[in-house]
Amino acid sequence: MNKVKMILDCDTGHDDAIALMLACGNLDIELLGVTCVAGNAGLQHTVPNTLHVVQHLNLPVKVYAGCDRPIVKEQVVADDVHGKSGLDGPVFEPLTISAEQEHAVNFIVRTIMESDGDVVLVPTGPLTNIAMAMRMEPRIVKKIRHISLMGGSLDLGNTTPAAEFNIYVDPEAADIVFRSGVEMNMMGLNLTNRVLATPQIIARMRNIGNKAGNLFADIMSFTLHSQAVNGLSAGPVHDVTAVAYLVAPQLFRMQQMHVEIDISHGPCYGRTVCDIYDRFHLPKNVNVGMDTDLEGFWNLVEQALRNLD
Amino acid sequence: MNKVKMILDCDTGHDDAIALMLACGNLDIELLGVTCVAGNAGLQHTVPNTLHVVQHLNLPVKVYAGCDRPIVKEQVVADDVHGKSGLDGPVFEPLTISAEQEHAVNFIVRTIMESDGDVVLVPTGPLTNIAMAMRMEPRIVKKIRHISLMGGSLDLGNTTPAAEFNIYVDPEAADIVFRSGVEMNMMGLNLTNRVLATPQIIARMRNIGNKAGNLFADIMSFTLHSQAVNGLSAGPVHDVTAVAYLVAPQLFRMQQMHVEIDISHGPCYGRTVCDIYDRFHLPKNVNVGMDTDLEGFWNLVEQALRNLD
Amino acid sequence: MNKVKMILDCDTGHDDAIALMLACGNLDIELLGVTCVAGNAGLQHTVPNTLHVVQHLNLPVKVYAGCDRPIVKEQVVADDVHGKSGLDGPVFEPLTISAEQEHAVNFIVRTIMESDGDVVLVPTGPLTNIAMAMRMEPRIVKKIRHISLMGGSLDLGNTTPAAEFNIYVDPEAADIVFRSGVEMNMMGLNLTNRVLATPQIIARMRNIGNKAGNLFADIMSFTLHSQAVNGLSAGPVHDVTAVAYLVAPQLFRMQQMHVEIDISHGPCYGRTVCDIYDRFHLPKNVNVGMDTDLEGFWNLVEQALRNLD
Amino acid sequence: MNKVKMILDCDTGHDDAIALMLACGNLDIELLGVTCVAGNAGLQHTVPNTLHVVQHLNLPVKVYAGCDRPIVKEQVVADDVHGKSGLDGPVFEPLTISAEQEHAVNFIVRTIMESDGDVVLVPTGPLTNIAMAMRMEPRIVKKIRHISLMGGSLDLGNTTPAAEFNIYVDPEAADIVFRSGVEMNMMGLNLTNRVLATPQIIARMRNIGNKAGNLFADIMSFTLHSQAVNGLSAGPVHDVTAVAYLVAPQLFRMQQMHVEIDISHGPCYGRTVCDIYDRFHLPKNVNVGMDTDLEGFWNLVEQALRNLD
Repeated sequence: MNKVKMILDCDTGHDDAIALMLACGNLDIELLGVTCVAGNAGLQHTVPNTLHVVQHLNLPVKVYAGCDRPIVKEQVVADDVHGKSGLDGPVFEPLTISAEQEHAVNFIVRTIMESDGDVVLVPTGPLTNIAMAMRMEPRIVKKIRHISLMGGSLDLGNTTPAAEFNIYVDPEAADIVFRSGVEMNMMGLNLTNRVLATPQIIARMRNIGNKAGNLFADIMSFTLHSQAVNGLSAGPVHDVTAVAYLVAPQLFRMQQMHVEIDISHGPCYGRTVCDIYDRFHLPKNVNVGMDTDLEGFWNLVEQALRNLD
Repeated sequence: MNKVKMILDCDTGHDDAIALMLACGNLDIELLGVTCVAGNAGLQHTVPNTLHVVQHLNLPVKVYAGCDRPIVKEQVVADDVHGKSGLDGPVFEPLTISAEQEHAVNFIVRTIMESDGDVVLVPTGPLTNIAMAMRMEPRIVKKIRHISLMGGSLDLGNTTPAAEFNIYVDPEAADIVFRSGVEMNMMGLNLTNRVLATPQIIARMRNIGNKAGNLFADIMSFTLHSQAVNGLSAGPVHDVTAVAYLVAPQLFRMQQMHVEIDISHGPCYGRTVCDIYDRFHLPKNVNVGMDTDLEGFWNLVEQALRNLD
Repeated sequence: MNKVKMILDCDTGHDDAIALMLACGNLDIELLGVTCVAGNAGLQHTVPNTLHVVQHLNLPVKVYAGCDRPIVKEQVVADDVHGKSGLDGPVFEPLTISAEQEHAVNFIVRTIMESDGDVVLVPTGPLTNIAMAMRMEPRIVKKIRHISLMGGSLDLGNTTPAAEFNIYVDPEAADIVFRSGVEMNMMGLNLTNRVLATPQIIARMRNIGNKAGNLFADIMSFTLHSQAVNGLSAGPVHDVTAVAYLVAPQLFRMQQMHVEIDISHGPCYGRTVCDIYDRFHLPKNVNVGMDTDLEGFWNLVEQALRNLD
Repeated sequence: MNKVKMILDCDTGHDDAIALMLACGNLDIELLGVTCVAGNAGLQHTVPNTLHVVQHLNLPVKVYAGCDRPIVKEQVVADDVHGKSGLDGPVFEPLTISAEQEHAVNFIVRTIMESDGDVVLVPTGPLTNIAMAMRMEPRIVKKIRHISLMGGSLDLGNTTPAAEFNIYVDPEAADIVFRSGVEMNMMGLNLTNRVLATPQIIARMRNIGNKAGNLFADIMSFTLHSQAVNGLSAGPVHDVTAVAYLVAPQLFRMQQMHVEIDISHGPCYGRTVCDIYDRFHLPKNVNVGMDTDLEGFWNLVEQALRNLD
């Protein structure tokens, strides 16, 4: 099997950090670059947060800064869940590395245009960078191999009653991406809220005994309590599922359906409207994650952490 | 215990017919009148459908015709589920009774204004009549004891991916009612889709051996297959739960929360947006049905049928 | 010529009062009743204001109270222009007459259903009562001879930059009426803002020397300064044009066009969107007032005042 | 007086071509570059159209291709007014020059970031490129000296009854720009529809006797009849006013007011909502063109044409 060539577009963020670790530690993935976007925290936090993880684990990947706010909507952040820095919890040494000069959007455009059509995008934050790239260079749309994103929900939201955070932050960007025609899968809250880093999981990863295992434990320990606002008993590793699906699709039950973004400015602004019963016979544009094999999933994560420092 | 004084406002409809039978057969209910509205079918069908049930079972209740279309939105009906007449299945003798001259909305206004503030409204169709009554005579709002309605959903819709039929048909009417401040409970699809008239239930009711049991069986047999569009294996008796709750609240698990109607004209138009996690700390205006004791529920229905002809 | 049979539906209001005087004083009009609605002020003001004018001038007409708030939208009033009572300025003797028991909406429905299809509605306030009547009894739609209303604007609004007061107060009611298919004409701000009761006009009417002339002067003197918010040098008698058109259409230049109400909840909520260039080739549902012959108009008003006490 | 440093962002287009000629021929303007956007026609037409004018008149300016569609909304073009090519009418020799490699958005960002804060943007098409630049590099917002745009309308639209073409094509882009806080003026239809290239004006420019005068005449002759859809007797040179204002502000009567873009997806989607009476006391973010001195304006244009080949 050829490695999956991947650009990770993230708003690091606790679960984004774990997703980055999986992307670097899994042997079937070739990570072409990490692009950052505003989301869980402002860009002034998500770029350094990403660099901290890269530096701490000595990950062989370049980091690009992207858009610092949504395209149309006013910015909101998720400091109730992720803390003021967006990655509260672990303590990092001072940064000695920095982001690249090239804008994340230009990097995405260039990488895809220079590719053989085999690059997969994995957005784990608001879809601002991806949508901007599609509008800067429409020709990338036909060259993107696949998009595997974390966002949305089949049923309830976590930011408003109707909407999940990543989509809610930039609904118009999501609308652009969901209507693009690119083959895509969506890992939403209906799935990801079941993938919890419980105390047992945290202990298991710390037990690995390397820096990666310890970082996992430091990061996810913070989320044990911050997710009570969503009625959860531990922190979900939402974003990690979007990476995992690309190398272990057999771990997930998926369902193809039409998904539309609500950009109406009403109380469901930012909802991923999923036509699960195919009421309207519209093109089934998204493969939606329905369930996962938790044992297989955590084995995959543990193995990736063991492959890191 | 005093009897519950009730006006049933319905768009008969299969499950409406069963709700009417429960309201007439249960000894703790005093049914003050039945008002009809367009919904499952046009008013030219829902009034005769209601009269047919009343005549067939010789029910001691008057029937009033109300609004023939939604207040603002274009009319839609549910002939995919209820057939062309809105109550396909049973065969009735020709009608010899007719509806009252008084308009349903005027009947609701008059009955409530003349009451001691002890009248409960049970809407099992679109909320057009109730909303019109509130606008015709705003003083009824403080005199309505309670509203127990069937409509909406905590999670998925059945008419659009986001919206349940009764609310979708007249979202503005629902908005008027949900913002009225009247104490209310909502039995939505998340609950009612579990209350299925399976072949076993149908056989049990036919086994009673009276006209009511046979009518139940004739009516619900039709719905055994028409609900496949919603992924269901049998027909739910949605509306019946709204009546049952008033005399047997102990059979239901409820949760108080803020519920807003989406009147934005976007893809979630008509959604009941339920803030189950109290994200926005808004007034908890609705008691939402979460689950029910199926055994107790069907016992209640069976006993009511036995009390009829 | 047969007299024009008319129901005046108003939210008295300064210019509404003058419209009522024209309707009673003009010999070609048979005023069947006056129905009141909330608008310029709450219903608790617009009903007594109307009764005061009727009593003061001993007008032979019955008054009916209607809806006290818009159908869907939150209520707003225009106390910046009309003062706290809605008819600040003139001083009236205490009321000895009162409104009828019958609801204005039921009066409208009954009058039209009992008519030969020759009744004209003249709404000079929000369209709540008219829309409610159309929904209470849809059969009136084909029996209404014509609607001549004051409201909307071809260009700028006076309540928001986009919307005129009467339409803005209850856009959904306006939407119901404008889509009803009833033959109608609309006197909007583009026309009515030119019909100013200047000091010269006020002096001319007071000069008549009867109670009606004096009341005109007392009423319109108040508006000389309250309209500065709209950049006007005197008070327009908006509503009077809707009555005048019915008996003197030759005084007005009109243009037939498609008009749609913006019910989108955005910044143009309540705008009358007038397709003056027929861009979309939609049914030309409204005859829009473009200009008027001011000399002829004021002659008509003066003659009516002379015909009163 | 220092020259005005300007980037012209256009969707050439008849009047865009004249605006480009004024920008190159006026001695007080230093044109830093011309960026193209989709609008009057698709980008595959607006780029060559621009290059044709540059080549034909040997203009010393570089051309950059930008966005080929609106950010969120589905694309519409104006082939009813501008013909299939977007610049029907004149016949050009085959192109021997081409657009630059750099993306228009990146050119705008780079030019402004490298400037001393003295660059003015003149958008005469949809605001897609400008809005994209603001989101790609938010720091440009404080460095843009001024934006002088053609678009919107104080009163009636020309594409829908409510909206002008440039704003209607990409309302979300306009919303981004109008809310940006950059000092700006807007030349809307209320002004530009009065600036008509009548047969007399066309003859006067052809009389100059050079290539520029002839090109003006060839271009504007086409529009003499294509504007009848908007009730006009000749073609307006809308876009030229946005350039003219920068070097001859004394020719224009302007009024500062709050302007908001309707992005509600309703019938006024894309309207520039102008609070001319300051109803809402919101920041007066736009200087709106109200009227112009036609004689002075055409003198300015003629002089610029004389300065060209």
